[in-house]
Amino acid sequence: MKLIIINGPNLNLLGVREKDIYGEADFDSYLNELKNKFPDIELDYYQSNVEGEIINKLQEVGFSYDGIILNAGGYTNTSVAIADTIAAITISVIEVHISNIFAREEFREKSLISKNCKGIISGFGLESYQLAVSNFVDSKTD
Amino acid sequence: MKLIIINGPNLNLLGVREKDIYGEADFDSYLNELKNKFPDIELDYYQSNVEGEIINKLQEVGFSYDGIILNAGGYTNTSVAIADTIAAITISVIEVHISNIFAREEFREKSLISKNCKGIISGFGLESYQLAVSNFVDSKTD
Amino acid sequence: MKLIIINGPNLNLLGVREKDIYGEADFDSYLNELKNKFPDIELDYYQSNVEGEIINKLQEVGFSYDGIILNAGGYTNTSVAIADTIAAITISVIEVHISNIFAREEFREKSLISKNCKGIISGFGLESYQLAVSNFVDSKTD
Amino acid sequence: MKLIIINGPNLNLLGVREKDIYGEADFDSYLNELKNKFPDIELDYYQSNVEGEIINKLQEVGFSYDGIILNAGGYTNTSVAIADTIAAITISVIEVHISNIFAREEFREKSLISKNCKGIISGFGLESYQLAVSNFVDSKTD
Amino acid sequence: MKLIIINGPNLNLLGVREKDIYGEADFDSYLNELKNKFPDIELDYYQSNVEGEIINKLQEVGFSYDGIILNAGGYTNTSVAIADTIAAITISVIEVHISNIFAREEFREKSLISKNCKGIISGFGLESYQLAVSNFVDSKTD
Amino acid sequence: MKLIIINGPNLNLLGVREKDIYGEADFDSYLNELKNKFPDIELDYYQSNVEGEIINKLQEVGFSYDGIILNAGGYTNTSVAIADTIAAITISVIEVHISNIFAREEFREKSLISKNCKGIISGFGLESYQLAVSNFVDSKTD
Amino acid sequence: MKLIIINGPNLNLLGVREKDIYGEADFDSYLNELKNKFPDIELDYYQSNVEGEIINKLQEVGFSYDGIILNAGGYTNTSVAIADTIAAITISVIEVHISNIFAREEFREKSLISKNCKGIISGFGLESYQLAVSNFVDSKTD
Amino acid sequence: MKLIIINGPNLNLLGVREKDIYGEADFDSYLNELKNKFPDIELDYYQSNVEGEIINKLQEVGFSYDGIILNAGGYTNTSVAIADTIAAITISVIEVHISNIFAREEFREKSLISKNCKGIISGFGLESYQLAVSNFVDSKTD
Amino acid sequence: MKLIIINGPNLNLLGVREKDIYGEADFDSYLNELKNKFPDIELDYYQSNVEGEIINKLQEVGFSYDGIILNAGGYTNTSVAIADTIAAITISVIEVHISNIFAREEFREKSLISKNCKGIISGFGLESYQLAVSNFVDSKTD
Amino acid sequence: MKLIIINGPNLNLLGVREKDIYGEADFDSYLNELKNKFPDIELDYYQSNVEGEIINKLQEVGFSYDGIILNAGGYTNTSVAIADTIAAITISVIEVHISNIFAREEFREKSLISKNCKGIISGFGLESYQLAVSNFVDSKTD
Amino acid sequence: MKLIIINGPNLNLLGVREKDIYGEADFDSYLNELKNKFPDIELDYYQSNVEGEIINKLQEVGFSYDGIILNAGGYTNTSVAIADTIAAITISVIEVHISNIFAREEFREKSLISKNCKGIISGFGLESYQLAVSNFVDSKTD
Amino acid sequence: MKLIIINGPNLNLLGVREKDIYGEADFDSYLNELKNKFPDIELDYYQSNVEGEIINKLQEVGFSYDGIILNAGGYTNTSVAIADTIAAITISVIEVHISNIFAREEFREKSLISKNCKGIISGFGLESYQLAVSNFVDSKTD
Repeated sequence: MKLIIINGPNLNLLGVREKDIYGEADFDSYLNELKNKFPDIELDYYQSNVEGEIINKLQEVGFSYDGIILNAGGYTNTSVAIADTIAAITISVIEVHISNIFAREEFREKSLISKNCKGIISGFGLESYQLAVSNFVDSKTD
Repeated sequence: MKLIIINGPNLNLLGVREKDIYGEADFDSYLNELKNKFPDIELDYYQSNVEGEIINKLQEVGFSYDGIILNAGGYTNTSVAIADTIAAITISVIEVHISNIFAREEFREKSLISKNCKGIISGFGLESYQLAVSNFVDSKTD
Repeated sequence: MKLIIINGPNLNLLGVREKDIYGEADFDSYLNELKNKFPDIELDYYQSNVEGEIINKLQEVGFSYDGIILNAGGYTNTSVAIADTIAAITISVIEVHISNIFAREEFREKSLISKNCKGIISGFGLESYQLAVSNFVDSKTD
Repeated sequence: MKLIIINGPNLNLLGVREKDIYGEADFDSYLNELKNKFPDIELDYYQSNVEGEIINKLQEVGFSYDGIILNAGGYTNTSVAIADTIAAITISVIEVHISNIFAREEFREKSLISKNCKGIISGFGLESYQLAVSNFVDSKTD
Repeated sequence: MKLIIINGPNLNLLGVREKDIYGEADFDSYLNELKNKFPDIELDYYQSNVEGEIINKLQEVGFSYDGIILNAGGYTNTSVAIADTIAAITISVIEVHISNIFAREEFREKSLISKNCKGIISGFGLESYQLAVSNFVDSKTD
Repeated sequence: MKLIIINGPNLNLLGVREKDIYGEADFDSYLNELKNKFPDIELDYYQSNVEGEIINKLQEVGFSYDGIILNAGGYTNTSVAIADTIAAITISVIEVHISNIFAREEFREKSLISKNCKGIISGFGLESYQLAVSNFVDSKTD
Repeated sequence: MKLIIINGPNLNLLGVREKDIYGEADFDSYLNELKNKFPDIELDYYQSNVEGEIINKLQEVGFSYDGIILNAGGYTNTSVAIADTIAAITISVIEVHISNIFAREEFREKSLISKNCKGIISGFGLESYQLAVSNFVDSKTD
Repeated sequence: MKLIIINGPNLNLLGVREKDIYGEADFDSYLNELKNKFPDIELDYYQSNVEGEIINKLQEVGFSYDGIILNAGGYTNTSVAIADTIAAITISVIEVHISNIFAREEFREKSLISKNCKGIISGFGLESYQLAVSNFVDSKTD
Repeated sequence: MKLIIINGPNLNLLGVREKDIYGEADFDSYLNELKNKFPDIELDYYQSNVEGEIINKLQEVGFSYDGIILNAGGYTNTSVAIADTIAAITISVIEVHISNIFAREEFREKSLISKNCKGIISGFGLESYQLAVSNFVDSKTD
Repeated sequence: MKLIIINGPNLNLLGVREKDIYGEADFDSYLNELKNKFPDIELDYYQSNVEGEIINKLQEVGFSYDGIILNAGGYTNTSVAIADTIAAITISVIEVHISNIFAREEFREKSLISKNCKGIISGFGLESYQLAVSNFVDSKTD
Repeated sequence: MKLIIINGPNLNLLGVREKDIYGEADFDSYLNELKNKFPDIELDYYQSNVEGEIINKLQEVGFSYDGIILNAGGYTNTSVAIADTIAAITISVIEVHISNIFAREEFREKSLISKNCKGIISGFGLESYQLAVSNFVDSKTD
Repeated sequence: MKLIIINGPNLNLLGVREKDIYGEADFDSYLNELKNKFPDIELDYYQSNVEGEIINKLQEVGFSYDGIILNAGGYTNTSVAIADTIAAITISVIEVHISNIFAREEFREKSLISKNCKGIISGFGLESYQLAVSNFVDSKTD
């Protein structure tokens, strides 16, 4: 089974940036933990601050992988183009957010991409990613 | 560890009602499966169509359980009172939805209770409940 | 043929409350008249001020009766949950209002339940109920 | 007793146009049926696609007939002038719609003329007209 | 003179819940104080989390008491049905709030029931209730 | 000097319709009075309930008369097409209203045609027309 | 007969300020012309840039004069207090504007005071004042 | 192949009206040019200022021609009835505009009829019509 | 104990203006009554129609008195500057209204100053002021 | 004559993605057809998923080519920056869309770039591009 | 060179009021510093809490000074009249704010006067004034 | 002291593009002037049309420089991601605009990034950059 986590803008600053909201852990250490928890899964990782590069990556993996876990960061609320890409590819995408986006500024409540995703997981810190992986694993085995 | 699932209006009709949206399974069978998957957890269940009774139940368990999993159904979008209750009690609540509420009618996108919950899980069918239980288990062990 | 009239909050005050809007008649006398006009029809009646009890009743009769005539009163404009119930049950519901809700306060114009009902009859005083019964009778005989 | 049915734009296409919404019957055959059901009533009919001609007709009959049954079609949502005419004449107008306008596009939900009408009947197919006639008859005999 | 205080959802948690907003006192002790301050007044008390039960109580006392003091809690902002009840009964209702609802979240600013009440008192802590009682007393003696 | 008064829908009912708003006078008698007050002016009159006929008339006189006095009635608030005609013709148009449109329903406050007119006179009863004629006379003599 | 013209903020700059909108004439010369045209009328004049002073003046003359002609300038769109004053006094107020406020910025279209005035005259340059005086004279002689 | 161009209100003034927006050419000369460019096509023409007459014409040709080119002028933004007609007939309609409606006043941006048309061509001057004809020709030959 | 009542625009007209809304009493007589009821309190009074003068007075007393009772009249809904002053001074302000502002025009429902006040009392006629005084007295003695 | 077609995000998936909306053809084959139809025109092609790269290309060709045909895909509705670029360059841009954007989701109706383009062509499938080329050719030869 | 700083309501409380937002310095000391930094400039100062007095001062200096630095305080968001004055005078005005108005309450983001000013400087504490002076000096010397 | 100016999309066209709005100067010459005025400051420069590259640069310098001067061009109004980056880095950012963005199209008035910046300087032509540099220098020396 082959999954990929795609992180959008500023998520490379995890552990550096606004720790009261996003926590102290950096993403690389977390990724290792995650791989250890799911040793049978091939788990790729990609991060970019550029909207179009995220689209490129989604197109690249979107017809062959078993699932995509997407945290589009600030593009969640503004990118019609990423939403279009998710609709265009054939692989399921799970939208995740580290913080509870509904408990923050009002403009973060409106995600443009949610309606094209399989499901949304928001507010569980880094564990949001783990829950998404779990769901792909469970769906497979059903 | 003691958790409770609280289901709001019309969720007693699962397996009967609009099967294209909510699936064929009835909730009781699913609950048994769930208990089997988490044999060490005491997992209570409560369903009511009455807004105030859901509030009563939330108040009753909200200071002593280890976690609440709430699918408020149609009250999700209209109940300031349930949102107030979640803020008032001390136990964490995870909001779950069977369908992807962001891919349905626009008025379902706006949840009044999300901002007071620990996190939101939406769109994974009945598995949404399982992911919520997982999160309570994982948080405990951390 | 078996029909039920379900009246929502404050409709038990008919003949007592705001007579300039709702008229002088109380509902019980009217119900008797109605039964006399349609002697061949079994016509049940239920009234509650509690949103969830109306949902309970709708679920109870919603898979076996021949038709439901619903005046949801103040819940017309606020209850997503009742609207969900109407969509979930299999029996047709006709929405009725005693007064012309479009000629009153603006917030009364927006009914959340209309889109799930078979039809709407508004503004004919208590006769609104009779017209609804007529329609169920005529549809049957067609 | 003398009533008139006034139909607005595109209602001359009934039986030709969008049959999934409006049904297969053409209005002329229906009108005959209706006359047969109410043999004691003089029932006139008028149709026009021109907003101003509908106004002319409303003014012409609006001080002498016993009732007007109006399906203003697409002018329902845009015509302040027709609404003004209904307020200006002395005969009661019942607003009817073949389809349930609340279950269609959102812009159809807002009728400009409802507030000046005696009542609204919407969603019963062609039988909406019959219910309106019934109401005029019943009111007369009361 | 016979008055009643009706408290809506979550107000049974006073002294337990969010003490920074609602203070440390529980309502029972306060009620005793209040009765001591107004020894000549018969002062009833009712609390419910269920919208429809509040309506039931308002109907029960609303034609015979000398005044009603209502803190509808979270139903203040969502209940057309309670607003309708206040309009339907003949006894005056004073709307009270413990906190200054205008200094909190924006959705709390819009009360559906204010327009049907005699007056509004908001922001004086539990003393809001006392001011309401005072007003009923003063009006009586005028 | 050659002027024309163009009246829109329902203004032929003046003296018949809603006398509390529009007064008891019919327009013909008023027109005679007006001609007597301004004996040197050629004063034409046109009324139609049909939007397109008002456009036809505006086009017909709009390149040769000295001024147009337009009371567009209910089309004031809905007709982009009449507003376009006023912009297209070369003769000045003064918009008049018998009643104070700003003191009536809110939807009447928004005139689509005002921005293309020379000026607006509203609220002086039938004298609104006289003030408009005065202005054309005064502008001429300046 | 005793009238007063009250001019609001910046109208003392007429003839100095934005001549393409307001013209070249200063108000004093115009006032003299106006007095000459209506020799039998006592015509007072007041100008202030201070909202509260305009209110003071309206209160002072508002129970004894025969009419008030008010150009509230920039306060037209923002002053609830001036609107209240017009409602409180017993003398009629005519609202005038030199330019066509509906052909300018959108925020100028919404006058807060129109609904409390007898009528509105807008867009005739300084002649707007003359038309207002005419109307008071004509109403008197009727 | 049989096409028709239907022009709405004020388009008979082309070459007379606002030449800076609509150009100097009158429509008749342009129509001749167009016929010369497409000698094999039967190209009818109809213009009316009356909304209902445009509906009549659309109904008349809407079940037998090969295509309709519609410039609804000011009715583009206000006519639900014309939009309904386009949905009711079976022949494709192309919406054209001479000017770029998106670069003009904001209320022109919202066309009520676009969603029922095959396509939209806006901003190419009179050539917008030619592009529409081309498209009908090309679709035929495909 | 030293309190001040500050009244905004048009409140000097009490007893003269719109008696059906504001009652027959003038404020001076009422003030005397009030002083008699609270003989131990120094109770100042200030009224102005000028927004800036109210700000001046608030600043003057806002650091030394024991409480301010403010009825800002028409400035309630428009004055950011008064709201800023209330936030800037250190003495508590209670906002009072004679009429129930929530039962009047919709624009009166939105008070800009409420969020900076200690509490709001609205709808008790002149007794609104007395309730405010009571609250300051009670708070002192607590 | 030198033209360029610039395609935005996801248009490289044509023939792969959502074929019910965008058709079966891939863009390369279509481009060849197009070149064959216009053998005398130099027709460049550029596609990118990155907003800023589209801006780069527009700047590069925007002062020297004879015309630009732009399908900005999902950036149509969100990119102020691309709209600014179109305003900044001197070559005309025609906006094209394959599908009828007005018949799809509401957020697609609002194009930020339309107002800066020469014209808009939407809804003709891939032929939208050909119509745009035709227009550049025709304009040249005029 | 002759400049003036005009401060609006509550800015006389600087150093007294909300020090966490506006800092500890009072304006007089700051003004002295500023004069020392720009010894060659004549720098006047005016403060008023009265909207109309600010207008008076702007008119007085607005045709003869070299520049105006305006902090309109709470009138920034509500005064159409001050905005009109800035448009009417011939001297440039720079709008300054001590705090970053875009990082505070949403209603402060909308300045009515910005569009008529030369430029805006917001968020630099008292140094906002110095930057404005610098700009007038630099513009002069260019 | 080390500062950087970051310019967003289309600002590389300065001196080429819309000179009536942005002036004749190109940015390079201006940058040289600026360096001459502040010889003691290390002043870097970066321009990109790509949103993500601006984010990359902000992250790169955002933990080590002494200040960032950002003109985000068209991304000012649409980029949640850039706003997030500014919040995430530790160095202060000053937002500058060449033109007065409040005097242009309405959609330019709303900056998404202002609330995370130290301050805003808008409308002073290229001198806006110089004022920003001055402020960083002055803050340093304080």
